[in-house]
Formats: sequence, structure tokens, C-alpha cells
Amino acid sequence: MKLINGGVCAAKGFKANGIHCGIRKNHSKKDLALIVSDIPATAAAVYTQNLVKGAPLTVTKEHISNGVAQAVICNSGNANTCNANGIEIAEAMSALVEQYTGVAAKDVVVASTGVIGQPLDITPIKSGMAELAAGLSAENGGAAAQAIMTTDTTAKEVAVEFIAGGKTCRMGGIAKGSGMIHPNMATMLVFITTDAAISREMLQKALSHDITNTFNMLSIDGDTSTNDMVTVLANGLAGNPEITGEGDDFTSFMQALNTITVQLCRMIAGDGEGATKLLECIATGADNEETAKIAAKSVICSSLLKAAMFGADANWGRVLCAIGYSGADVDVNKIGVSFRSAKGTVEVCRNGAGVPFSEEVAKEILLENEIEILICLGDGPFGARAWGCDLTYDYVKINGDYRT
Amino acid sequence: MKLINGGVCAAKGFKANGIHCGIRKNHSKKDLALIVSDIPATAAAVYTQNLVKGAPLTVTKEHISNGVAQAVICNSGNANTCNANGIEIAEAMSALVEQYTGVAAKDVVVASTGVIGQPLDITPIKSGMAELAAGLSAENGGAAAQAIMTTDTTAKEVAVEFIAGGKTCRMGGIAKGSGMIHPNMATMLVFITTDAAISREMLQKALSHDITNTFNMLSIDGDTSTNDMVTVLANGLAGNPEITGEGDDFTSFMQALNTITVQLCRMIAGDGEGATKLLECIATGADNEETAKIAAKSVICSSLLKAAMFGADANWGRVLCAIGYSGADVDVNKIGVSFRSAKGTVEVCRNGAGVPFSEEVAKEILLENEIEILICLGDGPFGARAWGCDLTYDYVKINGDYRT
Repeated sequence: MKLINGGVCAAKGFKANGIHCGIRKNHSKKDLALIVSDIPATAAAVYTQNLVKGAPLTVTKEHISNGVAQAVICNSGNANTCNANGIEIAEAMSALVEQYTGVAAKDVVVASTGVIGQPLDITPIKSGMAELAAGLSAENGGAAAQAIMTTDTTAKEVAVEFIAGGKTCRMGGIAKGSGMIHPNMATMLVFITTDAAISREMLQKALSHDITNTFNMLSIDGDTSTNDMVTVLANGLAGNPEITGEGDDFTSFMQALNTITVQLCRMIAGDGEGATKLLECIATGADNEETAKIAAKSVICSSLLKAAMFGADANWGRVLCAIGYSGADVDVNKIGVSFRSAKGTVEVCRNGAGVPFSEEVAKEILLENEIEILICLGDGPFGARAWGCDLTYDYVKINGDYRT
Repeated sequence: MKLINGGVCAAKGFKANGIHCGIRKNHSKKDLALIVSDIPATAAAVYTQNLVKGAPLTVTKEHISNGVAQAVICNSGNANTCNANGIEIAEAMSALVEQYTGVAAKDVVVASTGVIGQPLDITPIKSGMAELAAGLSAENGGAAAQAIMTTDTTAKEVAVEFIAGGKTCRMGGIAKGSGMIHPNMATMLVFITTDAAISREMLQKALSHDITNTFNMLSIDGDTSTNDMVTVLANGLAGNPEITGEGDDFTSFMQALNTITVQLCRMIAGDGEGATKLLECIATGADNEETAKIAAKSVICSSLLKAAMFGADANWGRVLCAIGYSGADVDVNKIGVSFRSAKGTVEVCRNGAGVPFSEEVAKEILLENEIEILICLGDGPFGARAWGCDLTYDYVKINGDYRT
């Protein structure tokens, strides 16, 4: 398996586009994305666990209840959530896809992201559809990645090539993240496409398993959006024998998917609202996987630690503290903590107590923009990773006045 | 019952003092507090639920295991936590209290607050004890309140007078709060004194019940300290018949305690690290108390909502969102949301959807420094309150470089 250029159009038979249709006031920001497969594809999805769910999620669930989808339409700038006519608007978006591409409305994944509780006007979408559909091309995946951004500062796309059943398959994805992302709920918006042939059951199994170690281990601010979803469309055009059960091909597929999702996690965390640093907490030495996950997530979610990382302050007491209140069943007297970056590694705590270290060295390490927080629990062979970002002035600025 | 001036010396037979002994580098900041009762008092306490517990908590638990205490010593500037010799230092602090006041070391409550994982030097405490003890007086409760502050910007004290068994009783308390305060754990540092006579069992019962509606409903940043405790000392000098069971006197005692703790909660939340606003979420219409509590706490803990309040932005979608991911069993289509302050009330959401409102009026209401977020769940007669603060640039600033 290898990383290749591209995103949702890396796999055979997918075209995409993204335009500014007018949902956003800023004309330089694209706000409408479309992804279309040449043929109907096997589809799987996971959704937010928030009880408040955007209307697009309800419509998408219904549309892919038969395990088939052929297109994705997604707008940014408005979440189409908590509006009286949300379902109607999401259905209207699907109907427009049918009208302009021929893909049946019932095979359309619909997604929206942006402010909650303001009616989404269908007018700009309607008037933009001709341009959006006309520009569909295997070269325009990047435009789609741009059009789903909200407070993201960079478009997020990644693609890989892998072998299944002797055939070269490809898989790619795009994501929008930034704020309101928290573990243990589905995730943010992620659209993944592949030309591998895989059964509906195995596709959903792969996705549902993968997110427990990837998007569910990602937190920007502890809030969980109402509109999160991850969808995978697999159109089978790579020509591999359909993956219908466990085995080498499924393993290859899972590895490809995990590569895509880990990369997107890192991109989302590093581009968290206002973030200056990507934080990765690597827990080892747990006596079971769940304990490792709970501890790693708690560390990555601590506002105090996140602020300390912004200040490049090796305040390891906050790491211990976060493990201590996480609910993980650990012996605090066995915990070790180190910080690592491209500048090196500094051990700061062993057996639950501080060890002497150079503040200058620690500062140099923590001034890097990718920081690993290594926690060893000293209890067994299990580990976990979690991703997050620092808490900065700009997070407050961005979220202090998001709507206006 | 009425509010009166004072804090831990409002009740008969309590003296206190606070000085700068040298734990902190800044000479203008007091760092050592002492509270002494003329006679041994009945004692009750609650502690942090963090697995990482400061050494002072271990020593205090042991000291009041017989339900008796006569003094409180507390330093700020160093948490005496995650140090190899923490227990030894906490015991040494107790011994110093015995040496300088005659109160038995085993009757001393010991507390520390400040940075974790740096050894606490006993030297400045030892050299300050003579001055600290010499200044003990019923007039110096305020100095004690100052000496326990860390990033607090104001000292926090409150006192009340109430009647029990025909006698006038008094109760007062001091608190230090600011950062690292999160519901469902014990709390921050709070020391309460009263001259009411009450049995050990009823005192613990009163405290353990009270905190479920007060300090456990308070969050500054979602982090939970390693050193939190609340203690109550009741010396019985008011002369009321000892409260040994339920009844009018116990009810009066509970009301007095609740008045103290709610006031301290509001003071702590309003003085949260970097806070410009006190936020109070008032949930009503729940079909049980737990649901109301879960919803109110989730709202008050949402970083996104806290940042919106800082920006005086009536972004009610974030309120709904926080209720939606709280885990509370609610029907989102019944939820109503209003914002209220001294400038008035604005309804922003009814039955889970937005209602038209004036952004200008909402802004005027939200620019106040005490904001109530009213959520009605539309399901029953139960309610709950939770307290927090906005998320500001200064929170990040304070916590980005706390140690150095």
C-alpha cells in the first residue's frame, strides 16, 4: 500500500466539483460540493451520536438504507439543522442532483455544515447546480474538498493505492473538521471513495470498526456536532473479486481505510480551530485497550493541558491529573510521562512523580508544531492513540463571534 | 436566616490568619492560611474523585477519620502532589500547627493548592509559623481567604446567621477556585466553619447532600483538580441542642449551608480563570432531577457555548447541541431556550427550532456580566442549576504559562 496524490477522485469512476453558489456571503469561499460515481456504489456510513441531528442525516440514512449510493452533495455555511423545513430542503438538494446528473435522488448522500438554526435557502443551490454539475471531473476533487470547509484553514484530502484480489485498488477521502469534534460520537464530515469491490456488510463492518480507533479518538473542543457523518462509497470498478468476508483482501482494505482515516484525523487535529499544534497522545502499558483509550482521550481533551501546550509549558502534572480523573482504572504510582517532537524526547515523570529535566530542552521540544505526549501506564501490553490540538487565543476569537 | 459580613470567623470561637511566608516569590501575595477553633469541633469533608490525590488529602482523611478537627492549615503556590515526600511534608505542617497553637497535630486539616509535581519546601512554612499563629484573630478571616488564592482575582468569603433550637447560630466559609473545577468530583478548596452543634453523622450527611446540587454543578474548564476538598468544622459554641437527626433544626442547618455554598459557587464561577461573565444554566421541565442536572451541566461545560457567551453571541444552536450530546434522555423537539440578564430576557428557541428575535436586544442582554441560560425540556416538573463562566483569551493566557 502506498500514499498517492488526490482525494475523492483518486479511485476509478469518481468525479467531483466544488463551487461558490451563494450560501456564504464571501464570494471567494466555495460552499457547494458534489461527488458522483459513474455507477451505483455500495455505501456505508456512521453518524453523530448527538440527539440533535441535522435534517441531512435523516435524509441520508433513509437514502442509503438499501446499502447503495451514487452521489454526495454537501453545502457549507449552514447546517440545515433545527429548522422547520430541514427535511424538505435536504430532499430538494437530492432532487436537484437527480435533475442535473441523472443519479436517482434516493441514491444521494446529503450533508450540510455550518450554523445551526437558520433556515437554509434552496435558491442559491438551485441556481448553482448547472455550473456545479457541468464542472464534474476527476480533476476537481480538490474543489470539493474546499467547498466543505467551514472554519478550516486548509483543505483536507488523502489517497492510497492498495492490492486486493490481485487488482490495484484506490481509495481517497476528504474531510472538514476544525471545531465541534469530540470522541465517542461519530465524527465530523468525511467522504471516502474507493473503486474496490466490497459487500455492503463488510464495508459497514470496516468503517464501524475503524472509527473506534480514529475519528472517535479525536477531539478539538469536547463538543460534538449535530451534523457529523462519515460515508464510504465503493463502486467496484477496480475489478477485484468482491470482498465478502474476512481474509487478506479485507485486511488490505482495512489497512487502506485506516491509513486514510488516520491521516485525516491528523489533518483535522492540526487544523483545529485556532490550533498552532497537533497533539498526539500515545498511551502504552495498559492492561486493556479500553483503559488506554480512556486515558489517552482524557489527556487530549484537557483544556488545561491544551493551554499548557500552546504555551510550550512542560506542565506534566496536568497530564497526570487528566489521567486521574479520566475514569480509567490505573495505578497512578506507575505512570510515566514524556514529551516528544522532532527536536527530541524529554522524560518528565516516572512512577507518578517528577524527574529532574531541563526546562530549556523541554521548551525547545514543545515549541514544535507536532507534539507527542507519551504516557506509559506500566500495567500491561495494550496501547491507544488520540489526537487533538492546543487551546489558543484564536479558538476563543473564532468561537466568540461565529454567527455574525 | 440572613447574610452577614465575614467568613470563617463569623461563627463563635473561630480565629484565623493569613500571611506571606515565602512559598510564592511575589511578596505581595499571601501564601499560608490558618484557621483555629477554640475547642475541638465536629468535622466533615468531601474530597476530589481524581485518582491522583494530593498528599494533604491523604493526611487530612486520616486526621478527621474520628470526626474531630480543630484547625485548618492551607498553603497556596504548591499543591504538594506527585512528590516523593508529600505525606511527610503534610504531616510536618500539622506538627507545626501543634507546636505553635497547641492544637493536636492529629486534629489538623491540611490542604495545599498550586503547581503539581514540585517538592514543597517546609522551610518558609516553618519560618512563618510564629507570625501566622501570633496573628490569629476573629478579625483576620479575610487574610485567610486571601492566602488560599491561586489565580483567583478576588477573595471569596460569605457568612450567614440562622436559628437552630432557639439559638442564634452562625456559619461562614471561604473558597479558592478559578481553574480546574469540574462537576461530579468533589470541588475546589472550601473551608466552612459554624458554631452550631451537630452530630458527626448529620454534618457529613448535610455536606455530602449539599455538594450534589452546588459544587458538583460547577465547572470552569472541565478539568478536576487533584487537591479539591470541602471541610466543615462545627464547634457547637452557639449552644443549641445538638442536631442529631432530621427535623426543623437540620433543615435550617441545610438551608444555611446551601446559602453559603451557592454563594461560593457563584463567586468561584464568576472568578473563573480569565472569566468576564458568570453563567448560570437553569434547566426546568425535566421528567427527573438527574436529567435536568445532566443537561444543565453539559451546557455550562461546552467550550463552544462558553466562547459564544464571551462574544455576547446568542448562538442557541450550541445550547441545543450541548443538550443533545449530554446523554440526557430528552426530546429535542420540545426544548426551549432563552437568555436572561439584568437587561431582560430573550427567547431564542421553542420546540427545538429557532424563533425570530432581535439580535440587538440579545446582544444587549448578553453584554451583561451575569447571564442565565434558561432551558425548558418540556417533559415534567424537575429542574437543576449549574454554574460556569465564559471562555476567554485570558483563560488561555493564564494557562499557557502557569508554572514559569
